[in-house]
Formats: sequence, structure tokens, C-alpha cells
Amino acid sequence: MNKIILLWIAFLLSASTLLAQDQPMMGFTKESAEKEYALEEKFDSYLNARNLDDWMKRLAARPHHVGSAYGKENAEFMVAKFKEWGFDAELAEYQVLFPTPRVRLLELTSPSRFKAKLEEPALKEDATSGQKKEQLPTYNSYSADGDVTAELVFVNYGTPEDYEMLEKLGIDVEGKIVIAKYGGSWRGIKPKLAAEKGAIGCIIYSDPKDDGFFRGDVYPKGPFKNEHGVQRGSVLDMPLYPGDPLTPGYAATKDADRLERSEAPTLMSIPVLPISYSDAQPFLKALGGQVAPEEWKGALPITYHIGPGPATVHLKLEFDWQLQPAYNVIARMKGSEYPDEWIIRGNHHDAWVNGANDPISGMVAVMEEARAVGELVKTGWKPKRTLIYCGWDAEEPGLLGSTEWVEDHLAELKEKAVAYINSDSNGRGFLGVGGSHTLEKFFGEIAKDVDDPQTELTVAGRRNARLMTQGKEENNGIVMSALGSGSDYSPFIQHAGIASLNIGFGGENAGGEYHSIYDSYDHYTRFKDPDFAYGIALVKVAGRTSLRLANADVLPFDFSRFYKTVEGYAKEVMKLADDMREETAEENKMIAEGIYAAAADPKKTFVEPKPKEEVTHFNFAPLLNELEKLEKLSMDLKDIDPSDIDEGSLKQLNELMYTSERKLTREAGLPGRDWFRHQIYAPGFYTGYGVKTLPAVREAIEQREWDKVDQQIEVLAEVLQGFNQHLEKITTLVN
Amino acid sequence: MNKIILLWIAFLLSASTLLAQDQPMMGFTKESAEKEYALEEKFDSYLNARNLDDWMKRLAARPHHVGSAYGKENAEFMVAKFKEWGFDAELAEYQVLFPTPRVRLLELTSPSRFKAKLEEPALKEDATSGQKKEQLPTYNSYSADGDVTAELVFVNYGTPEDYEMLEKLGIDVEGKIVIAKYGGSWRGIKPKLAAEKGAIGCIIYSDPKDDGFFRGDVYPKGPFKNEHGVQRGSVLDMPLYPGDPLTPGYAATKDADRLERSEAPTLMSIPVLPISYSDAQPFLKALGGQVAPEEWKGALPITYHIGPGPATVHLKLEFDWQLQPAYNVIARMKGSEYPDEWIIRGNHHDAWVNGANDPISGMVAVMEEARAVGELVKTGWKPKRTLIYCGWDAEEPGLLGSTEWVEDHLAELKEKAVAYINSDSNGRGFLGVGGSHTLEKFFGEIAKDVDDPQTELTVAGRRNARLMTQGKEENNGIVMSALGSGSDYSPFIQHAGIASLNIGFGGENAGGEYHSIYDSYDHYTRFKDPDFAYGIALVKVAGRTSLRLANADVLPFDFSRFYKTVEGYAKEVMKLADDMREETAEENKMIAEGIYAAAADPKKTFVEPKPKEEVTHFNFAPLLNELEKLEKLSMDLKDIDPSDIDEGSLKQLNELMYTSERKLTREAGLPGRDWFRHQIYAPGFYTGYGVKTLPAVREAIEQREWDKVDQQIEVLAEVLQGFNQHLEKITTLVN
Repeated sequence: MNKIILLWIAFLLSASTLLAQDQPMMGFTKESAEKEYALEEKFDSYLNARNLDDWMKRLAARPHHVGSAYGKENAEFMVAKFKEWGFDAELAEYQVLFPTPRVRLLELTSPSRFKAKLEEPALKEDATSGQKKEQLPTYNSYSADGDVTAELVFVNYGTPEDYEMLEKLGIDVEGKIVIAKYGGSWRGIKPKLAAEKGAIGCIIYSDPKDDGFFRGDVYPKGPFKNEHGVQRGSVLDMPLYPGDPLTPGYAATKDADRLERSEAPTLMSIPVLPISYSDAQPFLKALGGQVAPEEWKGALPITYHIGPGPATVHLKLEFDWQLQPAYNVIARMKGSEYPDEWIIRGNHHDAWVNGANDPISGMVAVMEEARAVGELVKTGWKPKRTLIYCGWDAEEPGLLGSTEWVEDHLAELKEKAVAYINSDSNGRGFLGVGGSHTLEKFFGEIAKDVDDPQTELTVAGRRNARLMTQGKEENNGIVMSALGSGSDYSPFIQHAGIASLNIGFGGENAGGEYHSIYDSYDHYTRFKDPDFAYGIALVKVAGRTSLRLANADVLPFDFSRFYKTVEGYAKEVMKLADDMREETAEENKMIAEGIYAAAADPKKTFVEPKPKEEVTHFNFAPLLNELEKLEKLSMDLKDIDPSDIDEGSLKQLNELMYTSERKLTREAGLPGRDWFRHQIYAPGFYTGYGVKTLPAVREAIEQREWDKVDQQIEVLAEVLQGFNQHLEKITTLVN
Repeated sequence: MNKIILLWIAFLLSASTLLAQDQPMMGFTKESAEKEYALEEKFDSYLNARNLDDWMKRLAARPHHVGSAYGKENAEFMVAKFKEWGFDAELAEYQVLFPTPRVRLLELTSPSRFKAKLEEPALKEDATSGQKKEQLPTYNSYSADGDVTAELVFVNYGTPEDYEMLEKLGIDVEGKIVIAKYGGSWRGIKPKLAAEKGAIGCIIYSDPKDDGFFRGDVYPKGPFKNEHGVQRGSVLDMPLYPGDPLTPGYAATKDADRLERSEAPTLMSIPVLPISYSDAQPFLKALGGQVAPEEWKGALPITYHIGPGPATVHLKLEFDWQLQPAYNVIARMKGSEYPDEWIIRGNHHDAWVNGANDPISGMVAVMEEARAVGELVKTGWKPKRTLIYCGWDAEEPGLLGSTEWVEDHLAELKEKAVAYINSDSNGRGFLGVGGSHTLEKFFGEIAKDVDDPQTELTVAGRRNARLMTQGKEENNGIVMSALGSGSDYSPFIQHAGIASLNIGFGGENAGGEYHSIYDSYDHYTRFKDPDFAYGIALVKVAGRTSLRLANADVLPFDFSRFYKTVEGYAKEVMKLADDMREETAEENKMIAEGIYAAAADPKKTFVEPKPKEEVTHFNFAPLLNELEKLEKLSMDLKDIDPSDIDEGSLKQLNELMYTSERKLTREAGLPGRDWFRHQIYAPGFYTGYGVKTLPAVREAIEQREWDKVDQQIEVLAEVLQGFNQHLEKITTLVN
């Protein structure tokens, strides 16, 4: 059998006409599906990679962080473009706290002296790297002001596990300055945990093992981080709440009541500074004490020690704590049939510096999508539902632009928003997608309808080929990841309960430019997606997502995949408890019998772990009962045929469909962080970007708060009960 | 419950008198066990760590490789000592081929020029490191002479898996010079495989990741390899046969018929040279081509590329191919009851340079054991069986001293040798043991009778504590590893079929001194076993092993543990075949469907793997049938009580006991390598030191020689049949 034919069968090789005949398009009648396929073909025909290239060149030409002159120019440029394409476009402005550095000093004072350069040099191979006047210096926004001197301790990635290890090794960071590698967690977790443990300062550096020469040739020879590159970034305590730190839960309008800075709980309490690996090496080399555990060691040509000291460090930081205007770009194309049902598509436009990849590679795809929609509209077509294209400002310091906008329009969004479709950086490689699992089946269809630019497969097929080489497989369409945090979907899904998707291509675009001056047009067009073929692929995938949601007869939500996913999370959480119970018992037994002490090298420091409280048994029954109901309900609602729905019920049915995600939220939010209202997905309190599914239950277990577990299971069961009741209404309507 | 009491219960805390009452000593009647415990207590009382220290200082004072003046002096010193202690001692001399370097030149000729230093500098902190005149230069013995210039290719560890990866990456080493890291296989495999693949030269270097600053502080600050340290070592094709390359299978006596050098199949066919990481860095840095896979990368501060070229290398090596005298030290203490039953205890005495750790740390323990035996004899006691203490010469170049001696005395050894007990390097930490599983139960008892020097546990208890922290456990006594190659037990077990043990302590003695000039008294007494406490622990363990074997009423062989072990190997081998069958089918399917090609980055070279021949099903029944018989027989022979044995049968029973291991050998040897006669244990043909159990069957499967598998299963079943018939004889005698 011919290889091509085999591939055809295996992956449903493109050709939308074929598909139209073979399978119904989710949410469409046969007739409207045919129209939709024709529309998408026309949509594709308008797309032009050259536009993405031109706009990237334009938008990334100068540094454009929030509050910068060029950031405002970019926003205005985009508004003008959207208007040109027939959209009702405007700037939505908020006043947000955005500190920039006044003083940055980091020096080794003992046993030898060294002053960190804290400077990324201009490169002749990179045209925009010399724009020193407009570049933000290397820093972590929302670090505290401070002037501290103390012994240094190397804490690996600075995660909870790393502090457990330090405890075993008898090392305390109280009163010390810690140095942590980037990676292993979101950066904001590192100073947060260090401060909780009593450290008075924090340095974060990019180790060449994770982000430098170890990975490949460094810039400008190759794409990876050179010895001077530094990752800027926010250390706002976003797992508590993202957005403007002075206006928690409400919009940072000009006249809003603002917290005092001293009251703002998401501001970092200790000074923290990111540095390059060439700056880090003298500090790490000067450390004594125990040799770091094997898995802590990086790729610098030194023996990694933990300290404390003899390295002593002086860190002095002062910031200019200004409010800055954030300019969101909001462009509407009113729906012809359901103008009050909104499909929202967005990407941020602010960068740390020039940000060709992050975020412009995604932003230009949003623009090309909107331009093509404009072209379609010129032909007389109109979306049934309202399409809203957004360019967010101030995402980098903590999702400020999108969060303030969502908080500003929360009531209206809860009523009208069907879905939010996000993108951010984009590059060559494989389709990646996370989101609400009620949209998983729908999105899987789209991924089978778009061709991969480099192979003869669809983007779903190529993704699956890669998974197969990793021993995984997606036989039944895309399996989506859950959303944690890290881009502008967060306020939509986690605060407002709007079904969301986050889409992008990558995996063949590795590099070390992230949040540095080297994230430039020159870097992007050499190493990321030189011909913008994957930019166009993103327009096709996200464009279809927007268009189908805008035009569907019945909104293509599916609850069976959602059930399957949540049931999987429930199993995970139960297994987590069982595993912890077994491990705790085993570990306590080993401690009681003195095994650890006996196995330890008496010539090395070893602090025997303390016995942990044993893990009780929990009552998962309420959750399992609701899951059982959910299973039945979701099976009943599988494969709704829009032709069967009574015309008069359509509006109500669709409203029930898209408001279903709201039922997964609680006004009271998650324990200790009420801004996060979604009860299925949340960023981890100690992982930052990393998602925790069934977060209230899972984190109660992970944090060993045994007395809270049953209570959180009940809360979760109640939420699912509400969701099930909502599905019952849909069932009544459909039958 | 008090921790100490818990430990007591868990690990049978020392106190041999207690044990004597609680459980019988294997192979002894109650009365003789009491005597034996008393004897061992007396033996222990003679031991003095100071002797080990003094002798190490003396034996490691100057370089003492085979053929060196000081090596001969050492041998003569030991003979004198053994005589002083009442042994009948002599030198057993053989004439063996031992090449030493005349010319060593390694240079980078393009794109830049660099000449490797090939020199380990003297250190003021290491008293013997400056003995330049007597030190062997850094080289690999039995490398070919050669003068080659070619492009360089980095081949990771140079193992078969690494060449599979190179094939996928489209890289061929034909006509090239390869550079391989030390580690991942025995060093001799690297040039052997490189030559099979068409390479014309081979460089081996110690990467700091595996053996250098990455692991810890380097010498002289810490114990690890500094940038100039080099691992010398043999590249003789020992998996074919060890010992003198010119006298395969027979003794290298003065007048022996010798092969021409050109006919000697174990000599390396291409030039090969070991270098330091400071010498390696310029060569690796000059490589271009693809970036090495993640797991190939080491700890040098460079981006690891594979090549080929542009780095071009010139390697010129010439050797002085001399015969040298090897002086084995052989010291006998005649047995009082069974003088023709021999317990052989040995360690090598030759080193690559000063060799304080390798081998003197083990050799001095053998000497102290013999001295204490001599003291016991002075009190009027005599061993029932003959004890032979051996100090082997020329182990380093390829087990030459021991192999020639075994080949010289093969017939007599087969008749008389009860067991061989080997040691080599020894240091602080945990008891390690490999050997014939007929001795596993016996050895487990001994390990419970010796106290660990650093804790309140026995050496078995501390070993178990460590295993428990690794999630393993030895509830029923020591679980021994199988013996591959790497020290002098090889000719005994694998050629002569003599039950063997290899014993040593380690795990808290890490360092980078191996086969370098820094393996010195200074290094050893700072980092390995400063007070020789584990040297004494080795004397106690090995001494008990020798003494109990010498004095046992019934030799303590046990076949139930042997059965269990071999049955485990059989399961492994069947699983290996099943796994390979499944993987091959899966992989061939993925190739046929083009999955690999679809998942590959089209901008990188990727050669799709070729489909492999599918794995047929094999007939394991003959093996399983014999194993079933073995199970029954071994159960019948469990827990023989020496008191039940008729005095007149004892001699015959013991002879059947110790000759049982011979039944596991075949005169015809393993396929393609007849010197290796043992059918249960052998060094792997492509792993070198690494053991392959059930080697003929396992390697036929691993090497995908499907047509040979059934045949080798039959051969193995016949061997086990012979073994079973032997056990039947024992059963008849016992019942």
C-alpha cells in the first residue's frame, strides 16, 4: 500500500470538500455547513504572509512596553487598520501601576569583588538591539525597592521541592539572599517562596543548561541565549490575582479608588533582579558549602555549591512607581442575527522590548484574520454573532490590559460572551492548544481542516505524528491541555467563566530571546517562522474558530469530552491522595526505623526529615455522584443535530450552551483567592503558570490541609450539581 | 519503641554469640559453628588498620605497572611477608605482551591549530605525582600503531545505541576519527565499534559531566578529576578473551608458542588515545554540523556538535611492543583435612601508576587477612582445606597475571578449587558483592555477622538501609549481582567454572583519580577510607568467607537461590524477546505510515530508520522444563544439616558441591568466543565489563540473530540438564 494513501487514511488529509460530504460540521445543518466551508475557502484566499511580515517589521521596529511612546503608536496604528477593514474600533484606556528601575546594583562583596554588568550588548547582526534609549533595562517588574547585603544561597529553581531538599541538607535561607535558576516554575514563585522562607533578596539567572549554549548555538550564530541575554519579567503575585495591583477585581479607570502601594498584596515584598549567565557565574563560583544535588547543577563550567556564603552579595534596587496608561485595542464587527452574542479574539500587543515573537508574531495573525473578515464583509457576508478583535496592552507586567477590560465589562461579558480565543507568541512546528474542554471536540474538527505548511498532513495529523513518536496518540481528535495562566485568557476563563481557547504553533522555533532585547524581527525571521507560514496557519485555525462560533446554528459545545476530562482529573486527585497516603506511611516508617540516618554519609550534613501527619481518607462520594449524573447528561446531549432544533428554541438553546461555562465558577472564588472563580481550572498557587485542575481539592491535598479536603470536595460537587442542572435545561429544550 | 531496639530487630545487630544460638551457621554442625565463631572473634582481634596504612604507603610509593622495577619489588616484598606469616609463598612468572608508548601526538589541524598536551601535571599537594620518570604516560594499551589524519566526529559514548542515533542523523564515521566520552560502556568497546563502523582513529576523553568538576570539587581541592587528569586503560578485546593476547587459552610461559602480533585477534585495529577534558575542549569546540542530542551533551562550556568536521585531527601513535615479565604472588597454607580442596583469595597488585586505590586498597586487605590467618596458625589452629592467597600482576592491561595462572593450572584447578574470592579497589561506604548465586545465601550470613564501621548496623543492615532509601529492599539476605568482567575473577568463574565472589565497599568514596597519576596515597587517605576502617571491614568479610569455606563440614553451596536467580534471568530473556517483538512491530508500522518523517523537522537532517526484521516466536520450553526440575531438586537440597551426613560421605558430598559450578560451563564456550565457558554469566560482547546473563541466548536476541535463538536455548537447557543430573547425585548422597 502506497505511503501517501496510508497517510490519507490515517490523518484525513485536508480537502474540506471531501470532509463536507463525509461528516457533518459541528453546530451546522448540512446546508449551512456547505456555506461555511465555502466561506472558509474564500477566507483562506485572502490571506497573505507578506502582511504579517510587514506588520511585524512595523510593530517591532522600536521597544513598545506599556507606557512607552511607541506602544501607544502601535495601538493607534492598529485601531486605524481595524477601522480601514470596516471594524468599529477604539482604544480602551486604563491607568495601571507600572514600576520601572531607577537604581540597579548587584555586586559580590566577599570573598572577592565583582560587579554585575546588568547590560545586554547591541549586536551588529541585530538591527534593533542598539535602541538603548527606549529599551527597558533588565529587571523584574513589581520587585520591592531595597538595599540588602547578605550571604548567598543557591536554591536551584526555588520551588517548594527545592526548599524541602535544602531542609534535608540543613540549609536555611533566613536572612540570606537567594540565587535561583529560571525555569521549573513561573518566575514570580521564586521570590515569593524565598520571602516566605525569610530570604531578604532574590537573584534569578538563566542557566545555560536550560537557556543558553547547552541547548544550541547562541545568538547571533544560532537562536539560543548568549552569555549576556537576560529574561525580564513580572514577579507580581498573579496566582492571587492578575491585573493592576492597586485595583483588585475592578477596573483601573482614571478615577477608580486605588489601594495604597503598601496595601497591595500582589506586590513582591523583597528585591528581586534577573541576570545573565555571565553575570551569574562569579557569584555561583564564589559559593562554598555542600555540592549541589546532581539535578540542580547547570551547564556553567564550575562545581555548583549551595552555600550559604562565603559569597556575600549586595543588591540595591529602586523603582519609579508610576501609573501608566494601558491602551487596549477593541474592534467590533456587529453580528447580523445575534449581535448580543460575542465571539472575542485577542492577543496582547505590548512587549518587554521589541517583542517580535512575544507578542507580535501572534498579534499580526489576529490582524490578518480581522482583515480577511473585513474582506468577507465587503462581499456582503455578515457574521451571525458579533466578532470582537482585541489587542491587549500591559500583558507582560501581569495581564493588566485584558484583566482591567474584563473587570470593567464583567456583567455584560457574563451575559454576552460566547467564547474567548487567545493567541500569543507563534512559530514553526506543531499545533498547541489549551482551553475549555466543552470546546475540545469542536476544535478537533478545525484542526483536521487546516493543512500543515511543511508536510502533506493536516495540522492535527502532524501533531498526532509527533505524539506517536513520543508514544502518545490522539485517535479521536485533539486532546487539549487545561489552562493555567501566562496569557490574556486568564481573566476570561478564570474570572468571568467564559469558555476559552489558547492557540499557537511551536516546537521547531526554539531560542533564547524570550523577554530580551534579542526578541527582534531579525531573530524571528532567521529562527522562528521565516516565511510566516505558521503565522498563516494560525490565521486559518483561529479564523475558522472565530467564524464557526460566529455562524453556528447551534453553538458547538460538547459535554461528553468535558465529562471525560473532569472524570480523569477526579481520578488523578484520588490517586494523588492515595499515593501521598502510602508515601507518607512508608516515609514515616523509614524515619521511625532510622533508615535515612543509617543510609546517610556521616561525613556530609544530613538532617533527617520529620515524620509527616498521616493522610486521612476522604469522602469523594459527592464528587463521584455528580460525575455519574454528568456522564448520563453529557451522553444524552452528544451529537445534537441542529436540523432537529425548533427555530424558536435556538436562541435560548445557544444561550444555555455558552453560559454553561459560567456554572463552573463560584462568586466566592477559590480558597484564599476569590478573584479566581473557575472551579475546574486555575493556575497553581505555588506553580504560577502551571495549571491545577480541580484546584481547591487538589491544592488542599498537595498542601496537606487534610481538614479542608472533604469540604472542598463538597463545594466542587455543588458546582457540578449546578452545571448538571444547567445541562438538564438544555436536555429539556433539545428533546 | 526505642529507635535502637527497632534497628536491632530490623537488622540483627551484630553480636555473633547471639546469632550462634539463634541460627545454625551454614555448612557447620552446632559444635563446629561454635568453634568457628570463636575463631573469627580471635581473627578479628588480630586486625590492625595501621598495617593497611603502612603497606599502602609502601606499595603505592612509586609507579608499579607490570614490567616496572617497583612492581617486581612489590611482588618480592609481598612474598617475603607471606613467608614471614608462615605461608609457602613464591612468584609465578609469565611473559606477556605489554606495549608502552614511544610516540603520542594529537593535534587539531583545521579550522584552527591546537596540540594536545597529553600530560598530567605534578601537584604540590600530592607527593607522588611528580615521579615523571617512572610514570607510564597517558595511553590506551593495545591500541594499534598508526598515523592518521581525518575529520572528527563526536559519537557520545560510542555504544551501539549511539551509532543507531548517528544513522538516524545521517552521519557516517567511515574514514573519520571519532571522539567518544568515557563511560556508558567499557572503554575497549569504543574503538572496537568505531573500527567496525570504518573509523580510522579514536580519541576517548573524560567529560567533566561524568568525571570532573560537574560532580564536585576537583583535585587537589576535592577528589574529582581536574582538567588535566586522564584515565589510562586497556583496549584489549577482552570480551573475546582476556589475558596475554599472544597465548589465547594457554599459559604465557617463557617458551610457549606465541601468535604473531598480526594474528592476535584481541589487539585493537586502529589507534586510540585517552585525553583530558582540557585537551578535548578545543577539538569539540571546533566541531560543526548538527547539535548533539540532549543526552549526549557534557559539562564543557560549549555547544556540543557532532560534526563531521570542520575539525580535522592528526593522531600519531607508536608503541614499543615488548614482552614483559608478570609476577604473580602465590602463597599457600596447606589444609589439615582436605589439602586438595582449595579456597583461593586474590587481588591484583599492579597499577597503572601508583594505584593506591586501584588496586592497593584491596591488596592490603588480602595481606592483613593472610597475616591474621598466619597468627591463627601460630596458635595451633589449621584450616581444614588449603588456603591460597594471590597477588596478581598485569591485571590492568587485561587480567593477564590471573588468566595465565589459571590457564597454566587449569586441570588442577578444575579438580581442586572450591571457590575464588576476589577484591580490588575498596573504600568507605556500602558492601557490594557479585558472584555465583550458589554462594549467595552463604554470603548473606556473613554480611550479617560483620559490623559497619560508621553506624550501629551490620554491613548487611547498612546496605539494606541504603537500598530501602532507593525503594529496594533485601529482606532475605544479600541479593548478589552477576559477574561480568573487570577484575581477576573472570578466568576463575568464566573460564574454569569455579564459583567466585567479588567483594568490596564503596559509595562514599567517589573521585576522579581512576587510572591517573592522582590515584595516590595522599588522595586515598584524604577521600577514600582515611582511617582504613572499611579496609578492616573488608578483611572481616572476606576473611570470614575464606575461613568458613576452609572449615565448613559441608561446603555451604545452596541451589535454591541459584534456581530463583536463573529463573529470573529466564523471565528477563523471554520478556526481552516479547518487548522487542512488540517494539519492532510498532516501529515498522510507524515507518510504513511515514510517522517519523511527518514528525521530523524538515530543516534538520533526518534519515528515516529502516524497517527491521520482525521478531519470531521462540521455543523456551526446553529451558523452562529444566528450570522446573532445578526448582524441585534445589528445594530438596535446601537446609542440609551437616550433622545428618554420614562421615564417610562427606568428602564425596563436598566434592560434588564445589564441582557443581563446573557443570555450568561448556568446553565449546560461547558462540564466537570459546574462552568464555560459563553459560550463565559472561561479559557482554558489546558492553565489555557489563554482564550478560544467559549470554548465548540473550545476545542472540539482542543482536537479532533469530535463527540462532532456539538453538542456543537448547544448548542452555542441556547445560542445565547436566547441572540437574549433578544435583541428583548430591540428593542421592544426602538422603
